[in-house]
Amino acid sequence: MNLSINRQVRLKERPSGIPQAEHFEIVETSVPSLNDRQILIRNIFLSVEPAMRGWVSSVANYAEPVPLDGVMRALAVGQVVESRDPEFKAGDYVTGMFGWQEYIVADASTIQRKVNADKLPISTSLGVLGLNGMTAYFGLLEVGQPTSGDTVVVSTAAGAVGSCVGQIAKIKQCRTVGITGGPEKIRLCQEAFQYDHAIDYRSEGLDEKLTTTCPNGIDVYFDNTSGAISDTVLKHLNVGARVVICGTASIDSWEPIPLGPRVERHLIVNRARMQGFLIFDYQDRYAEAVDALTEWVEADLIHYREDILEGIEQAPGAIAGLYRGENLGKRLIKIADI
Amino acid sequence: MNLSINRQVRLKERPSGIPQAEHFEIVETSVPSLNDRQILIRNIFLSVEPAMRGWVSSVANYAEPVPLDGVMRALAVGQVVESRDPEFKAGDYVTGMFGWQEYIVADASTIQRKVNADKLPISTSLGVLGLNGMTAYFGLLEVGQPTSGDTVVVSTAAGAVGSCVGQIAKIKQCRTVGITGGPEKIRLCQEAFQYDHAIDYRSEGLDEKLTTTCPNGIDVYFDNTSGAISDTVLKHLNVGARVVICGTASIDSWEPIPLGPRVERHLIVNRARMQGFLIFDYQDRYAEAVDALTEWVEADLIHYREDILEGIEQAPGAIAGLYRGENLGKRLIKIADI
Repeated sequence: MNLSINRQVRLKERPSGIPQAEHFEIVETSVPSLNDRQILIRNIFLSVEPAMRGWVSSVANYAEPVPLDGVMRALAVGQVVESRDPEFKAGDYVTGMFGWQEYIVADASTIQRKVNADKLPISTSLGVLGLNGMTAYFGLLEVGQPTSGDTVVVSTAAGAVGSCVGQIAKIKQCRTVGITGGPEKIRLCQEAFQYDHAIDYRSEGLDEKLTTTCPNGIDVYFDNTSGAISDTVLKHLNVGARVVICGTASIDSWEPIPLGPRVERHLIVNRARMQGFLIFDYQDRYAEAVDALTEWVEADLIHYREDILEGIEQAPGAIAGLYRGENLGKRLIKIADI
Repeated sequence: MNLSINRQVRLKERPSGIPQAEHFEIVETSVPSLNDRQILIRNIFLSVEPAMRGWVSSVANYAEPVPLDGVMRALAVGQVVESRDPEFKAGDYVTGMFGWQEYIVADASTIQRKVNADKLPISTSLGVLGLNGMTAYFGLLEVGQPTSGDTVVVSTAAGAVGSCVGQIAKIKQCRTVGITGGPEKIRLCQEAFQYDHAIDYRSEGLDEKLTTTCPNGIDVYFDNTSGAISDTVLKHLNVGARVVICGTASIDSWEPIPLGPRVERHLIVNRARMQGFLIFDYQDRYAEAVDALTEWVEADLIHYREDILEGIEQAPGAIAGLYRGENLGKRLIKIADI
């Protein structure tokens, strides 16, 4: 192991839409030396998120954009190599915003939490027990506020967030309808994620299918897509419905803002609500979500899938692949052995 | 007074957009005789509401559409002529869904409330102390949830609902910005309704004006318009903003649903919410609103304007006039003397 070299994936050019491989470059630098109270972490899994499109965009956003020539912002899980902070010791597994790079020298505040590697694989700390699971947990329960017997519709139903939303809704005794694309994901929705109904928006009439699968209307719509799928779903809202706006995967670019059918009449007639959601607002309550999700995964009530690419060379093109829907499960990049 | 003749305004033809005079006809019928526990009411003021467009539409709605050849649904305030119900006696002023007609024979359940004619004019029971005032009260306070120091923006700011929203927001220690059209309404907003700022969307750059009048963004947007005004306002939402969707005055027809810039990104970036509102959901709490509004009007904290047309012949064209913005204040039709 050559500790002196640290490969980093940096933002070379700012994309106007979905980031492609050519917007990044891989650069070799050296690992900085440790100062007092610092920790050297070797990253093992890097995360790939749909939200990364927003992180590299210069358009007004909830976070400062990743600077040009900066290391791509990313969650990662890694192992402490050396620690000068008494809270951490060599061998600890830790997760945090460590970026798309092999090594990071950080202080304790950069570390989100220690990961228990005894029960579940450490990769889960980036998926079902990470930002994705917590997004599902708080987005559905706090914003969607499902109650027993509600009909909950999820777009990108087989995705890392969507699949978790569907299963939490099921735990909360809701009827669940998942919308996804293609026969493989439909099978995943039915077999692994236990949706009551799974609709393939590519091959079936979504409007008619929603009529038959949601005869009493939709109480909660957890939306990761925007676009044509949402336009159709909104026609089926029940009185008092809650729409959780979590992501906009189907929109290639927000400059200029694309047009869609106006939502005001749906909202008035149904006294319904659409509400935007951002996981970072729930930082103080992450532990609660991790505990609940861990319990549900261990009890076999929540299943998850992972899509693991090998090698840091895969990182630059990995976001675009997500938006093409080529992954089945949470996309990770494995860059070191455990 | 010839009690045997009752002139009624009936829906002759169902409009696809805004109801025009030709969609109605005035018919003379006879006043039915009273049965046990019934009440004969002579209407004095008939109400004209933007919501009437929805009431005559065949498109999915919160209420059954007014049937063809049926009396136009409307709030009215009138006086009891004869009563066979012990709760009411001749001379009482009462308000309720009495319809656009001169007389109605009703039972007690049709009457919304007795109106106290001693302090404030009975016409207020259809405006600031009626559906308009209550819409402002519950829409702003329950859905908008303003807190002291918030910036509250109101569209149709000089209207019967909007003017009341602005003044209640002021009572709740908010900064208020009213959007309206034309110099007369701007003056009303500034002088009568005490907005901190009034913006004429017809003659000023709304976007720039919102930037200067709402430097910290908009916390509550009470929307009666939809359309281009809303599209501009949504660009100025603050984090955690609440958008109350109360009406869609600027949309001529919802068949097909008109296009507008998608709202999802505004909602995510600002963790904001858009929520539809319907006053009838608050029926159990009307008395609370009437009490609060009465107190505020008497304390000179809420001012109101009325636009009174004379004679039932004015009713058929009165809705279209509202949508042309020709009225200054709550539009009523006076059809009898007090």
